[in-house]
Amino acid sequence: MLFLARMDATLPPDLDPEVKADYLARQKTYCVELQERGVMKAIWRVVGENANYSIFDLDDHDELHRALQGLPLFAFLKVMVTPLAKHPDALDYYLKG
Amino acid sequence: MLFLARMDATLPPDLDPEVKADYLARQKTYCVELQERGVMKAIWRVVGENANYSIFDLDDHDELHRALQGLPLFAFLKVMVTPLAKHPDALDYYLKG
Amino acid sequence: MLFLARMDATLPPDLDPEVKADYLARQKTYCVELQERGVMKAIWRVVGENANYSIFDLDDHDELHRALQGLPLFAFLKVMVTPLAKHPDALDYYLKG
Amino acid sequence: MLFLARMDATLPPDLDPEVKADYLARQKTYCVELQERGVMKAIWRVVGENANYSIFDLDDHDELHRALQGLPLFAFLKVMVTPLAKHPDALDYYLKG
Amino acid sequence: MLFLARMDATLPPDLDPEVKADYLARQKTYCVELQERGVMKAIWRVVGENANYSIFDLDDHDELHRALQGLPLFAFLKVMVTPLAKHPDALDYYLKG
Amino acid sequence: MLFLARMDATLPPDLDPEVKADYLARQKTYCVELQERGVMKAIWRVVGENANYSIFDLDDHDELHRALQGLPLFAFLKVMVTPLAKHPDALDYYLKG
Amino acid sequence: MLFLARMDATLPPDLDPEVKADYLARQKTYCVELQERGVMKAIWRVVGENANYSIFDLDDHDELHRALQGLPLFAFLKVMVTPLAKHPDALDYYLKG
Amino acid sequence: MLFLARMDATLPPDLDPEVKADYLARQKTYCVELQERGVMKAIWRVVGENANYSIFDLDDHDELHRALQGLPLFAFLKVMVTPLAKHPDALDYYLKG
Amino acid sequence: MLFLARMDATLPPDLDPEVKADYLARQKTYCVELQERGVMKAIWRVVGENANYSIFDLDDHDELHRALQGLPLFAFLKVMVTPLAKHPDALDYYLKG
Amino acid sequence: MLFLARMDATLPPDLDPEVKADYLARQKTYCVELQERGVMKAIWRVVGENANYSIFDLDDHDELHRALQGLPLFAFLKVMVTPLAKHPDALDYYLKG
Repeated sequence: MLFLARMDATLPPDLDPEVKADYLARQKTYCVELQERGVMKAIWRVVGENANYSIFDLDDHDELHRALQGLPLFAFLKVMVTPLAKHPDALDYYLKG
Repeated sequence: MLFLARMDATLPPDLDPEVKADYLARQKTYCVELQERGVMKAIWRVVGENANYSIFDLDDHDELHRALQGLPLFAFLKVMVTPLAKHPDALDYYLKG
Repeated sequence: MLFLARMDATLPPDLDPEVKADYLARQKTYCVELQERGVMKAIWRVVGENANYSIFDLDDHDELHRALQGLPLFAFLKVMVTPLAKHPDALDYYLKG
Repeated sequence: MLFLARMDATLPPDLDPEVKADYLARQKTYCVELQERGVMKAIWRVVGENANYSIFDLDDHDELHRALQGLPLFAFLKVMVTPLAKHPDALDYYLKG
Repeated sequence: MLFLARMDATLPPDLDPEVKADYLARQKTYCVELQERGVMKAIWRVVGENANYSIFDLDDHDELHRALQGLPLFAFLKVMVTPLAKHPDALDYYLKG
Repeated sequence: MLFLARMDATLPPDLDPEVKADYLARQKTYCVELQERGVMKAIWRVVGENANYSIFDLDDHDELHRALQGLPLFAFLKVMVTPLAKHPDALDYYLKG
Repeated sequence: MLFLARMDATLPPDLDPEVKADYLARQKTYCVELQERGVMKAIWRVVGENANYSIFDLDDHDELHRALQGLPLFAFLKVMVTPLAKHPDALDYYLKG
Repeated sequence: MLFLARMDATLPPDLDPEVKADYLARQKTYCVELQERGVMKAIWRVVGENANYSIFDLDDHDELHRALQGLPLFAFLKVMVTPLAKHPDALDYYLKG
Repeated sequence: MLFLARMDATLPPDLDPEVKADYLARQKTYCVELQERGVMKAIWRVVGENANYSIFDLDDHDELHRALQGLPLFAFLKVMVTPLAKHPDALDYYLKG
Repeated sequence: MLFLARMDATLPPDLDPEVKADYLARQKTYCVELQERGVMKAIWRVVGENANYSIFDLDDHDELHRALQGLPLFAFLKVMVTPLAKHPDALDYYLKG
């Protein structure tokens, strides 16, 4: 089952550069793992914004919440989740590269 | 280059059922063609709403506008386009099934 | 899996009273059936508004969309769906009478 | 009488982990007690957000406000309360598990 | 128990003047009766708008919804209800002339 | 002449408890005085929110602004004022207990 | 006492040109009269919009509402009124040509 | 040429009283000078809010921006500017006392 | 002096195709003329929307309003005008091809 | 391909003046370079606001995001990007001085 998530990050402008780099590295590791597990099907940068749209594929709301809450940057994120269904005009529910 | 589009359709509730069916059939044909040409990478129904999120892949704003304006239901749609860039945490820019 | 839905109905004020009564009767039959099947766990009127909040329990977005789209008043409804997860402070995921 | 409440929590990202854990523990104890007393009929996590929807059953606005104001995290919460009435299509005013 | 209601009326500009006059007369009779029964404690015009703020005093959400739904202009109204509690700085919960 | 005011208070969560208690005590004294002078006809708590709706009766905008600006918590308040007129359906302009 | 009003007009695009011209002529006559009586101190067009900002000077909310409700275009207007007080930095409460 | 400006000030609640008094004094001097030069035709307090509406008369956007940016409180202000044109129903473009 | 305008067009979906074509042709002629006179410096389509952003260069609000009000589609447009000043980081106030 | 960007800057009011001057100088150098490279076609100040509208010309979303993210003030900016297409009424896609 797919979900579209939009995440807007607000990091304090005076965050220590090393702390920030560490956060970003852990966030990347975590997102890569979600993609390798097939949980996160895609993630894109919103042009010009410290934000992303991403596609999650999970069969359970509790697992989805855990996946999102586990994001190392979660405390700095505003997340908005939209449940997606198959569209009658879609060739495929899943995504194509 | 990818774009996320959200389309909200507002058809008049008293639309003649045959006219409506014709619109929907032509819309489907058109969307299938966009998908077959690789212009529309995905389209999903927003659960509970007469709306979709879709992913477009085109290198030119004029072509994207033409693709959208050509939708048979265009006069009934509110379309909102968000340009997407590669995310530093993404394994791939493109989508995976 | 639970979803909270808010539905706002906008019926044309000059709707023929018999047509309206027929819509409302079919809507009631349909909602009662959803409740008897355990798909709709609850439905409440928002005080003073032609709107409801309801709780749906389904394991699939496509089925949820079908359930909502099947509402006889669907063409007159603005529906907003929020996916719900278990709360760490909840004694129970399900509702108690 | 039922009320739907939505609560959005905004804890400072740099909150001391022990202080935070203490807040969360006290909040849990308090919510469990509200549920055991039958005042809070349900509480769900909004997927991906530090927020909940909950159902309160009380016959008095002053008691409801006291119940909400007593939440250990109240100073960090944005609460929005919607009064609910019986819906003509509902099999039952109360909730079913 | 008190509730603040804001009602915004949108009558079609081309409504037949006699029909409109009849609506307004029935609305007035109804509101006067609500006031005489002590259900509507006050009603004020929002200056410059076809809107009112009013104060309702009822112990039950179902009765409040019935009172509002019974308004002859209900089909043309957008109603928003806010539950009110006693304020710690108030000399009196009730209103004073 | 009546005005409806909505005030939303945002006190810093880490405000010293004694300082806060002092603010609240002075705010209460001030509000009681406004009520005794007949300037503030009513004040109610918005259930679940650190907010109030209140009714002011003054014949002059400058006096109303002074009354509001004099609130000990003014620096922490977002105030929104709505001018009220007599409603054609009202039995009385003034409020009834 | 001064009030700032913003009025947004929405005339049906298919309004009969003569009917429209008659409305506009009566609206002008009425506004000129309000200005000559000193009730409307100023009226300006919002550039590019079918809207105006105007300044009213009246000591009573009921009179202000009557003045606004008497506008021949009232049924087509969305009016928003803001009460104004003397500003501590103003040389004068009143306006200067 | 006239412009309507709305300015909302947000001063930190813990601003040192002397620093604040100094800001306010310089702001007043500056506003008085703008009025004496005929650049600011009027300034009013929005009742109950730390905000003003003011009328500027300048023939050049760069000069208007300089006038606004020169406000001693500019760093604490949210300013919104609306260009105004002569209204067909106005007796006069300029303001009358 | 430059102004940014955003125009959103809402034509009735059932507009007669010939009437619509005539409107569009007259709108084009008018816009071309504004560009040839140097009044409209640029006009762009918002991708996917029946909307444009355009740049106007005029020294007078009354002339700007006349230019906008003269648009053949004006009755179907929502126009929002933003006054622009020279930016300190701009090489040039004017636009470069 | 053109994009319209609106950027709203929020610098902390207590930013050290030298640090601020350094930020502004580096921002200017960077913007001038973008203009000299033909990437930024125009930048204008929104009158009265610490904001700009600017026009970007780039054929790739990743390059656009890099250009924006490279702004020395990026951490203090809220950026909103709108993709632009050729308008059927435009004499030219590009801008004219």
